[in-house]
Amino acid sequence: MSADTGRLRLGVVGLGRLGKRHAENLAYRVPGASLVAACSPVEEERAWAREALPEPRLYSDYAELLADRDVDAVWLVTPSSLHAQQIIDALQAGKHVFCEKPLSLDLAECERVLAEAARYPHLQATIGFMRRFDPSYRDAFDKIEAGAIGRPFLVRSQTTDQNDTDGFFVRFAATSGGIFLDCTVHDIDVARWLLGSPRATRVFAAGAVALHEGLREFGDVDNGVAICEFEGGKLAVFYASRTQAHGNDSHSEVIGTAGALAIGRNPSVNRVEIYDRSGIRNECTPTFFDRFEEAFLVEAREFVAAVRGGSGCGATLADAVEATRIGGALRESLLSGQAVVL
Amino acid sequence: MSADTGRLRLGVVGLGRLGKRHAENLAYRVPGASLVAACSPVEEERAWAREALPEPRLYSDYAELLADRDVDAVWLVTPSSLHAQQIIDALQAGKHVFCEKPLSLDLAECERVLAEAARYPHLQATIGFMRRFDPSYRDAFDKIEAGAIGRPFLVRSQTTDQNDTDGFFVRFAATSGGIFLDCTVHDIDVARWLLGSPRATRVFAAGAVALHEGLREFGDVDNGVAICEFEGGKLAVFYASRTQAHGNDSHSEVIGTAGALAIGRNPSVNRVEIYDRSGIRNECTPTFFDRFEEAFLVEAREFVAAVRGGSGCGATLADAVEATRIGGALRESLLSGQAVVL
Amino acid sequence: MSADTGRLRLGVVGLGRLGKRHAENLAYRVPGASLVAACSPVEEERAWAREALPEPRLYSDYAELLADRDVDAVWLVTPSSLHAQQIIDALQAGKHVFCEKPLSLDLAECERVLAEAARYPHLQATIGFMRRFDPSYRDAFDKIEAGAIGRPFLVRSQTTDQNDTDGFFVRFAATSGGIFLDCTVHDIDVARWLLGSPRATRVFAAGAVALHEGLREFGDVDNGVAICEFEGGKLAVFYASRTQAHGNDSHSEVIGTAGALAIGRNPSVNRVEIYDRSGIRNECTPTFFDRFEEAFLVEAREFVAAVRGGSGCGATLADAVEATRIGGALRESLLSGQAVVL
Amino acid sequence: MSADTGRLRLGVVGLGRLGKRHAENLAYRVPGASLVAACSPVEEERAWAREALPEPRLYSDYAELLADRDVDAVWLVTPSSLHAQQIIDALQAGKHVFCEKPLSLDLAECERVLAEAARYPHLQATIGFMRRFDPSYRDAFDKIEAGAIGRPFLVRSQTTDQNDTDGFFVRFAATSGGIFLDCTVHDIDVARWLLGSPRATRVFAAGAVALHEGLREFGDVDNGVAICEFEGGKLAVFYASRTQAHGNDSHSEVIGTAGALAIGRNPSVNRVEIYDRSGIRNECTPTFFDRFEEAFLVEAREFVAAVRGGSGCGATLADAVEATRIGGALRESLLSGQAVVL
Repeated sequence: MSADTGRLRLGVVGLGRLGKRHAENLAYRVPGASLVAACSPVEEERAWAREALPEPRLYSDYAELLADRDVDAVWLVTPSSLHAQQIIDALQAGKHVFCEKPLSLDLAECERVLAEAARYPHLQATIGFMRRFDPSYRDAFDKIEAGAIGRPFLVRSQTTDQNDTDGFFVRFAATSGGIFLDCTVHDIDVARWLLGSPRATRVFAAGAVALHEGLREFGDVDNGVAICEFEGGKLAVFYASRTQAHGNDSHSEVIGTAGALAIGRNPSVNRVEIYDRSGIRNECTPTFFDRFEEAFLVEAREFVAAVRGGSGCGATLADAVEATRIGGALRESLLSGQAVVL
Repeated sequence: MSADTGRLRLGVVGLGRLGKRHAENLAYRVPGASLVAACSPVEEERAWAREALPEPRLYSDYAELLADRDVDAVWLVTPSSLHAQQIIDALQAGKHVFCEKPLSLDLAECERVLAEAARYPHLQATIGFMRRFDPSYRDAFDKIEAGAIGRPFLVRSQTTDQNDTDGFFVRFAATSGGIFLDCTVHDIDVARWLLGSPRATRVFAAGAVALHEGLREFGDVDNGVAICEFEGGKLAVFYASRTQAHGNDSHSEVIGTAGALAIGRNPSVNRVEIYDRSGIRNECTPTFFDRFEEAFLVEAREFVAAVRGGSGCGATLADAVEATRIGGALRESLLSGQAVVL
Repeated sequence: MSADTGRLRLGVVGLGRLGKRHAENLAYRVPGASLVAACSPVEEERAWAREALPEPRLYSDYAELLADRDVDAVWLVTPSSLHAQQIIDALQAGKHVFCEKPLSLDLAECERVLAEAARYPHLQATIGFMRRFDPSYRDAFDKIEAGAIGRPFLVRSQTTDQNDTDGFFVRFAATSGGIFLDCTVHDIDVARWLLGSPRATRVFAAGAVALHEGLREFGDVDNGVAICEFEGGKLAVFYASRTQAHGNDSHSEVIGTAGALAIGRNPSVNRVEIYDRSGIRNECTPTFFDRFEEAFLVEAREFVAAVRGGSGCGATLADAVEATRIGGALRESLLSGQAVVL
Repeated sequence: MSADTGRLRLGVVGLGRLGKRHAENLAYRVPGASLVAACSPVEEERAWAREALPEPRLYSDYAELLADRDVDAVWLVTPSSLHAQQIIDALQAGKHVFCEKPLSLDLAECERVLAEAARYPHLQATIGFMRRFDPSYRDAFDKIEAGAIGRPFLVRSQTTDQNDTDGFFVRFAATSGGIFLDCTVHDIDVARWLLGSPRATRVFAAGAVALHEGLREFGDVDNGVAICEFEGGKLAVFYASRTQAHGNDSHSEVIGTAGALAIGRNPSVNRVEIYDRSGIRNECTPTFFDRFEEAFLVEAREFVAAVRGGSGCGATLADAVEATRIGGALRESLLSGQAVVL
């Protein structure tokens, strides 16, 4: 923390599309935070940072940013394959760390991060499952805590993207870990969070290639469905899709013994309804960022507040490990056609 | 009533589009009713009746139908200008009478019917304000009665048709009485019904010609708005339109001291929602008949049950007179630009 | 068919709660039909029929009704365990037959009916999967046929009842076949219908006992979820529940390559919205009959029209066999914890 | 503008409930702005500012703040009766000025501000009709501009507060100008904005005292309805209420020749739907601040951007004068029972 201002000094790492959004949030919208550094190997991205951000120190190399003693915390928006080692490096450099999901696609690597982090209990390490910060998800969580739906026992949750005719994610398929590790990890985390963080005991998954034939060679699908059984007789049903027509429609339901809550069932882009010859309609959030824009901001604020206040916040590394474990089992089930016992 | 079957024997008069619908309801869907006669001056319509109805006696002349001693009740779906005299003739012939709205556009004529009907207290005479029979309107009425919204004091109600590019109603404008007497009478009746049948004390109306310039020569508009003050500090706001893009959107709200009810706010044609690139939408009821199909049926059933049971049902002639009185005042206000005190 | 009237003469068999509804529909609301006979072993039910129906001949014994030569078709609303034999008996007696779902819980018995029916191709035999007749489901089917959502590849469908604190279905659990054969058969039929009648290839099911512990001894659950894979890469996800707080919420979605349709997503009981201190709400259909009242009526009309017109209608016996086959596999998966290959 | 930072240096004046919100926005969430000063005669409010804001210079006297040469712009959240003179004072002190609505309840005073402001064309003067900055209202405006609904000719707009059982606004009634000048000015501004800024030609208003009898002595009502005719045959219908049960429900519709737009029709507080024995519901925004939180923020950002960029933004003083003119005519109509020609 800055001795002068008491502000948390952050360095953002990775300035792709999502990285830019995080950087702007940290720079301008988070009380108690100063974005003092940014790191990208890409010159265009550093040029953007020079223009759009309030004079951060710019690095092309992550190690140099870690060596910057005026950086208290790093904010990782880098390729998934780098996450685990970058988190470990940050912790070893004495810095708090926020990392976009997933922790890692590799379970052993996840466990390695977990073990390393245990050596730095004074450092905050949070994985960016942003739905935990979305005000509607939060309201649902609070209502459940208050007993509004009795005992929750079933979550239905989906992460479904608008179809990308460019097929970006097809090119990305070799390294994405497949639809369940890439998309459904969010739903896994939501389910565990809303159901009281139970352990999964068995999963089954199935999928379809609706539009993107190129996925087949990677054993991937563009639409996947799954069932997850948890200890204590709790259940989750997941749906992931790359091919929605109407927009990004990521929503969840939680069903309890005395009621249910739906969160974001209509992904309306705003409060406008259009009346015309086609009927009455609302437009939908085109991307996850449009849907979760506020969640990303709250996430940044709460991370900063947590570090400054010494409290925890959001999904822990252990939550992230469990999400990877379940996501990996879903992929295994998809490939084998068998239920997988965890 | 048939001595054999105990069924009420009805004759329908007028077999235009709406008349056909009524006739089919009476013929096939109303317990305790027999449609035994039908009357139309139009040969095609009688031919339709021969085919579609269960062997009714067919008349081209209303007086002949009234002379049919096996007809217990007449069901008038005739041009508005004929209603008043036809009701009087029916009552004088000893027959119960159901008549489509409006009773008459002429207040003196309304009063004449009212006076005549007073001489036949044993005969049922009902004006077809069908919204009183729509299950959702009925549910709202019952909830209000049960105190669900405290004391109701404001109704907002609208009758808005999908734009008819043929402009049928423009040709009809010379005799329709204008938009308030043609459309808003429904809303006037709804407002009075839901507010406890108060008398109106003052009205103001304004209008716009959005699309149908031909209405101007008749002093009519294709969109009209109005405020109606009732005794006891109650209020209503009305909207009528001939030019909606999305369908017939006839709905109402009633606001009370402890809550409010909206009835039919989204005129969805069914329970289907469509997700596509334009967003999420539902299609809408194209015409009032689609929206109020069930109301027309309940209306027929309750009329028949009321006659057989000796009870009242729906809007009385006095209600219809009041609707005409208020509708006429709205037209006067539209033309004068002044508030009209009743 | 009656030589006099050309009407189809029906005998209803079984006059429990649902049987009464069917009987009233057939008696009063189905053009071209005459309900001429009713059969129940229960004297109270026959007494009800005497009062409520238009003078049907009453039988306490099914065989006697079948012997009635003035009965053209039977309408079976009897316990599930009787269905198969009663259908065979009806066909052998030369009568068309409508039978409530399920055809049978036993696959061999299903096949036996199928074989027998093949001998009577001139007789209509329909199983009562009423959602095929619900106007909203029908509209969705028609839109799919018209290409509105591209190629449909995923159905999500649920049959969820309001919690019955009496636990009637717990007592019924020994013979119901379990939640998937009792409830999910509807969703199975919907999925196959909307996806082009594919064959299932593999299923997985899981369940939870949320409230009704008494189900455990029957190997049953009060909430079940399942995934069904079909040939051609099509998928379905099912949810069945006995414990909903808000009402019967039976709805479906179908997702295609160019859009999606949701059918009945909010099971609003009517068009009223209530505004009060708790927010804005609509009430929900308490039972499946409230939700599918119109479907039951259309079903009866179309069956009668089909018999009179010689065309097919609704779910065939083969569809019903497939529903039982898949439902049975779901139960097997629930019990074994393994995916079941069909 | 700060020579060092290029940021606009603002002083907020008035630190009541709404003032605090504005101050926090300006302090922490508006790029390019620095909140350098705050003014309140109330010591508790200044104490709050000391704690909650980033070290502003604190003044108890408006004149002193105006004398602060490091203040570029003032942000007035003061009692309505002070607005006009404070705006004039600010302009004469060479400062840009943002002022909460209304400009003034007195038309002559409005005109005086307008005349004075004409002398300072280089200074930005904006009145806080925040709905112009709400993303949904903005989207509607943009869609209209793009021709989505043809020619807009009718706006229906309402400002309705949740009932305040404390009756704060009753005590405030003596100086509020009445419900139309206090609440409906927002709707007037929205209507003019969405209809292309037409001049009003005639108005009519009516009202009811539903709950707060204390209003009668001030000639005020707790529910008011009004019609406003504009030049060019355009219309608006307004509703204002102090007594809603479900929350602040401020929404608008705009109807055009080829379609319509509804903005905020369900004032849902977030994306959560609650399923329980009462049905399916969403909770509503309790206050206008909850509904328009984002609008207040966008408003601040756009004001700052406008001053820095030299462009205009939001409602001009002329718009505010017109809103007061129409609001005053509505009050006159309410009191007289007559239409008022403007």
